[in-house]
Amino acid sequence: MIDRPRAAVVGATGYTGAELARLLLQHPYFRLGPLVGHSKAGQSVEDVLPSLAGLVPGEIAPFDADAVAASSELAFCALPHGASAPTVAALRERGVVVFDLSADFRLDDPQVYREWYGEHGAPDLFGRAVYGLVELHRDALRTADLVAVPGCYPTASTLALAPLLAAGLVDPNGIVIDAKSGVSGAGRSPAASTHLPETAEGFRAYKVGGVHRHTPEIEQELSRVVGAPIRVSFTPHLVPMSRGILVTAYAMAKGEVDVERCRRAARELYEGSPSVHVLSAGKSPDTLWVRGSNRAHLAYHVDRRTGRVVAQSAIDNLVKGAAGQAIQCANVRFGIAEESGISAPATWP
Amino acid sequence: MIDRPRAAVVGATGYTGAELARLLLQHPYFRLGPLVGHSKAGQSVEDVLPSLAGLVPGEIAPFDADAVAASSELAFCALPHGASAPTVAALRERGVVVFDLSADFRLDDPQVYREWYGEHGAPDLFGRAVYGLVELHRDALRTADLVAVPGCYPTASTLALAPLLAAGLVDPNGIVIDAKSGVSGAGRSPAASTHLPETAEGFRAYKVGGVHRHTPEIEQELSRVVGAPIRVSFTPHLVPMSRGILVTAYAMAKGEVDVERCRRAARELYEGSPSVHVLSAGKSPDTLWVRGSNRAHLAYHVDRRTGRVVAQSAIDNLVKGAAGQAIQCANVRFGIAEESGISAPATWP
Amino acid sequence: MIDRPRAAVVGATGYTGAELARLLLQHPYFRLGPLVGHSKAGQSVEDVLPSLAGLVPGEIAPFDADAVAASSELAFCALPHGASAPTVAALRERGVVVFDLSADFRLDDPQVYREWYGEHGAPDLFGRAVYGLVELHRDALRTADLVAVPGCYPTASTLALAPLLAAGLVDPNGIVIDAKSGVSGAGRSPAASTHLPETAEGFRAYKVGGVHRHTPEIEQELSRVVGAPIRVSFTPHLVPMSRGILVTAYAMAKGEVDVERCRRAARELYEGSPSVHVLSAGKSPDTLWVRGSNRAHLAYHVDRRTGRVVAQSAIDNLVKGAAGQAIQCANVRFGIAEESGISAPATWP
Amino acid sequence: MIDRPRAAVVGATGYTGAELARLLLQHPYFRLGPLVGHSKAGQSVEDVLPSLAGLVPGEIAPFDADAVAASSELAFCALPHGASAPTVAALRERGVVVFDLSADFRLDDPQVYREWYGEHGAPDLFGRAVYGLVELHRDALRTADLVAVPGCYPTASTLALAPLLAAGLVDPNGIVIDAKSGVSGAGRSPAASTHLPETAEGFRAYKVGGVHRHTPEIEQELSRVVGAPIRVSFTPHLVPMSRGILVTAYAMAKGEVDVERCRRAARELYEGSPSVHVLSAGKSPDTLWVRGSNRAHLAYHVDRRTGRVVAQSAIDNLVKGAAGQAIQCANVRFGIAEESGISAPATWP
Repeated sequence: MIDRPRAAVVGATGYTGAELARLLLQHPYFRLGPLVGHSKAGQSVEDVLPSLAGLVPGEIAPFDADAVAASSELAFCALPHGASAPTVAALRERGVVVFDLSADFRLDDPQVYREWYGEHGAPDLFGRAVYGLVELHRDALRTADLVAVPGCYPTASTLALAPLLAAGLVDPNGIVIDAKSGVSGAGRSPAASTHLPETAEGFRAYKVGGVHRHTPEIEQELSRVVGAPIRVSFTPHLVPMSRGILVTAYAMAKGEVDVERCRRAARELYEGSPSVHVLSAGKSPDTLWVRGSNRAHLAYHVDRRTGRVVAQSAIDNLVKGAAGQAIQCANVRFGIAEESGISAPATWP
Repeated sequence: MIDRPRAAVVGATGYTGAELARLLLQHPYFRLGPLVGHSKAGQSVEDVLPSLAGLVPGEIAPFDADAVAASSELAFCALPHGASAPTVAALRERGVVVFDLSADFRLDDPQVYREWYGEHGAPDLFGRAVYGLVELHRDALRTADLVAVPGCYPTASTLALAPLLAAGLVDPNGIVIDAKSGVSGAGRSPAASTHLPETAEGFRAYKVGGVHRHTPEIEQELSRVVGAPIRVSFTPHLVPMSRGILVTAYAMAKGEVDVERCRRAARELYEGSPSVHVLSAGKSPDTLWVRGSNRAHLAYHVDRRTGRVVAQSAIDNLVKGAAGQAIQCANVRFGIAEESGISAPATWP
Repeated sequence: MIDRPRAAVVGATGYTGAELARLLLQHPYFRLGPLVGHSKAGQSVEDVLPSLAGLVPGEIAPFDADAVAASSELAFCALPHGASAPTVAALRERGVVVFDLSADFRLDDPQVYREWYGEHGAPDLFGRAVYGLVELHRDALRTADLVAVPGCYPTASTLALAPLLAAGLVDPNGIVIDAKSGVSGAGRSPAASTHLPETAEGFRAYKVGGVHRHTPEIEQELSRVVGAPIRVSFTPHLVPMSRGILVTAYAMAKGEVDVERCRRAARELYEGSPSVHVLSAGKSPDTLWVRGSNRAHLAYHVDRRTGRVVAQSAIDNLVKGAAGQAIQCANVRFGIAEESGISAPATWP
Repeated sequence: MIDRPRAAVVGATGYTGAELARLLLQHPYFRLGPLVGHSKAGQSVEDVLPSLAGLVPGEIAPFDADAVAASSELAFCALPHGASAPTVAALRERGVVVFDLSADFRLDDPQVYREWYGEHGAPDLFGRAVYGLVELHRDALRTADLVAVPGCYPTASTLALAPLLAAGLVDPNGIVIDAKSGVSGAGRSPAASTHLPETAEGFRAYKVGGVHRHTPEIEQELSRVVGAPIRVSFTPHLVPMSRGILVTAYAMAKGEVDVERCRRAARELYEGSPSVHVLSAGKSPDTLWVRGSNRAHLAYHVDRRTGRVVAQSAIDNLVKGAAGQAIQCANVRFGIAEESGISAPATWP
């Protein structure tokens, strides 16, 4: 084990960074490298990430591409979109294998990126990343040096719907995705919309009307599955809890479809995928059942009165929706068991 | 004011009963009559309804139709379906004006009732109630002696969608209603599904696949608006909070529809309806903004990419979705101002 | 009712302001006057206080002492300490009866004020206010033109302990007050310490070691009751909920003290106080039982093994701990029934 | 690693059982043995413990002492007090090393057990267990075949106060322990007191007046430290969250005591204890910072005005307060690194 690779966490002071540190501290293969931050550089880790108090001494390091490259074979970048691309480029130039958790490298089409995010910060690298939804892109990830770790909503949405579309069980047109996320998905910066008194006993949608930036990412992945461009109606909601995403997706059944066919399609597509579990017939997933874990729970119901299939998925937005999935990608990339360090069940209840 | 009518609360020991007592205690016209319960009869009000400690002395009374009729001109019945019908019948026989909060008198079609609820407990009265969604049935309520107070989900769903359907702005086919409720909607009986540790940091759907009993009630009311039978895909979810319902409903726009047309349709339909407010364009309702009030907040968005209208509504399930709406019905029936005693804004935050 | 006085709310855009507006909208005597704010002046009320959408048209007014005095016989000032004093002075000069919810006029001793808060903003007025804990200062309030509405923790702490001290049942030395507050007590400004993901599933103390500014206020009021200066150990905690304060106070019994003597002392001291209720023996208060109401629930237990009396109180920090108590003071000052407009039970559950 | 011992979980269907399973699944040395339950025996693990869906196939096993002894070198018993003792006895007779999480073997004095719990179910074994607070009893645990894993409140209370008492910094008389627990501490059985709508937005004390059964356990351990019998005032509270205990303890300083001396006393007592961390001066622990981990965070403040030391501790009641601590005991007993399998930081936020 003399050669366990070291993994830097760039953008370590947000929630995704904290999760990466937590998971890497327990990882059997990767070692936790420097925790890199910008505005909090120089502060003690204990002050910034209180759960690491007594476990990780030292300070948040400022970003220095050479230093990261000198210490670390791989880096997880958890920066905002836009800010991420040049940082990723600097690390790639120095040979670091990068797992980028921003949106900067998730989209294939530069025009779509521009429309939803604006100018790209590293156009030369655009289109060079492998999309890190392991369950659908496992083979390509084995040799990827730049991985675009999927967004939380796209992960949950795609996992739920891909089996139905791949098996031709539902109409790819007219899909409605009603998604609900815990508040940690909004990040660590305090805001009125996440201030406990205005959030704890309330429930609301946001970015309604097809304007959330995860929409084109979902469409890209589902279109790949279908082999033709599709559009979805996607509406996110904020749940008064810290973690978890539940997706409830609606699609019209094609012909005679029953629950068992849906479940079988999912089991087949995700065979050999240790992070995905198809619940027993009749059950519906609960985000609490996967909280803190890298697991995705899926379920399918058929509404015979309206001919709709209701596909559901639950994940932890910070784990399978971010940090855990990034490590899952790294496991595949470095040729170790896919579930290494991320096989723990949920911290339930 | 010598003749302020007295209102009994039958089934006073649940959450709806507690809300009725709260609102009647402050009502300028009705006086709070006996609090009637079954399993808790004889217990002190303070022990059963702790928020009334020091405000309502005495005990929970057992049900006695003659005693209720002797003391009270009107009664609110907050009993489970099935148990409600014979109680309502006994009170009606004695001339009491009844506002029934169960499902027993909400449906028009006895066959539909049988299919979803089983045998009816008072078939002679079936079909004799006025459906108490005041905003749509105000005139009929003025002379009603038996009012079927709507369910919480049907209230929120119908208020959001009726304007679009009445104005012909959306296709009545293919509507998806994704609804989310606080846990008080599950009633006061403890259960694994409402035990705090298994509920507080989790989110889940339940009765998925078109099997929730509020489905036919929603369809009945929307079909009335359309003038033809329609079916909807309805999925309820449980939000880790006490109170509130948010409905997110999806319908395909018919022709060119913009947000202003939707908002105008709602403002016109609900003109003169003090409990309904259409939010400014661009906003989305939050259940917290109506918590504890009899108000409904509505909002409309148009997803131009998919041609869908997203209609949203937020109510407090125990107030506009139950007790407050019942009093609103009683206000109309007794000829006083519709918002009497229920005009308070939300207890925000 | 042609002369119902109008009440301005200065500092209307915080949570206390919102509660004042809510309660004044329903008040049978006072009318809601202008909603005055500083940084949000000119914004629509609906945008700033979403629970008032559709109920209060118009905008947040900038502060203008003349305008307030022209429109309003009384004013509730809900400004931060320091900023409050000059505003109060300007209103008092113009004859407005002022109920000040800041800390600026609560303390009797200017030296103590300086030590805990710094320089005072209106030293001429210092010491001229009546402390608005109605249950202990009712008579003085009847003629007060400037009322210092108590802090939330002092209200809960004093109500619980005053009866024991007044009746000589406990040793005034060595009292420990362990207090717990919902997050709305921290105000409306978002901060890391109130950001939902870092607050919802956590519990912590703050300002530990006798440094919270409510300490001298509690000591002042308890010292008045005792007739000699006393000191208390006061520790506040943050509860992951929006509203409510629970105080658990510990004092050594003097001689033979049982629960009934404690309860009797409280009932006697608070006879004729409609907002205070002493729970039945054996019960402990729950903040939920008073949420949204102006009520205080008290309870007493005796630990025979250690000789300690445990006194508990529960209030809603924004109502009996702020806005409701301010209106209670105004009711007394204007000679109307003390519970006018604030008699509603809690919105439970 | 051919001989990794297998660990049975008896009473696996409650929250502590679920945590034991979660931690054992990831343990580098122990292997998860049978999951044993009583009322749910025969049900699938997935149905009973949804977080294990897809990870632990099979069913909950009925209790059979011979079968447990045949499969498992050690057993964790998470049964209610009273029911636990005979089960433990049966396993001990068969040579199984038992870590008992009930209260049955925690107390030294049979008279005290009888007074607080009633008749003991295995009097021959009474007094034969080692108390499993590793930080204070590490050496005795190395050879223990029966370990009484401490209660959650005693763990948090003792860890906070032992350093102060051991170093003679505070008066052992007059200690007040105000403790606050998440709702999972109440177990998995639904009840009115844990029903979300009556718990989520409320805060309350319970078993007030020195009557909680953890009181004698705390007194036993602190008396050991002091070397003389002491009594404490202990009051537990219920926090509207799932997990976590915060203890705020008050003791009179003896002579000149400052924060640094308190912190140093704690660091010295817990030197070599990987689960305990003394926070930087000025900080207060938050249960969220240890949620899901086996860590205890301690902090000390001195109130100079009253001469009191305020000692605080935060743990996760299900981990360091139960399952994690049990495994920590087993690690010590089986001679492996104390933090094996339980070194993960909190799942924060």
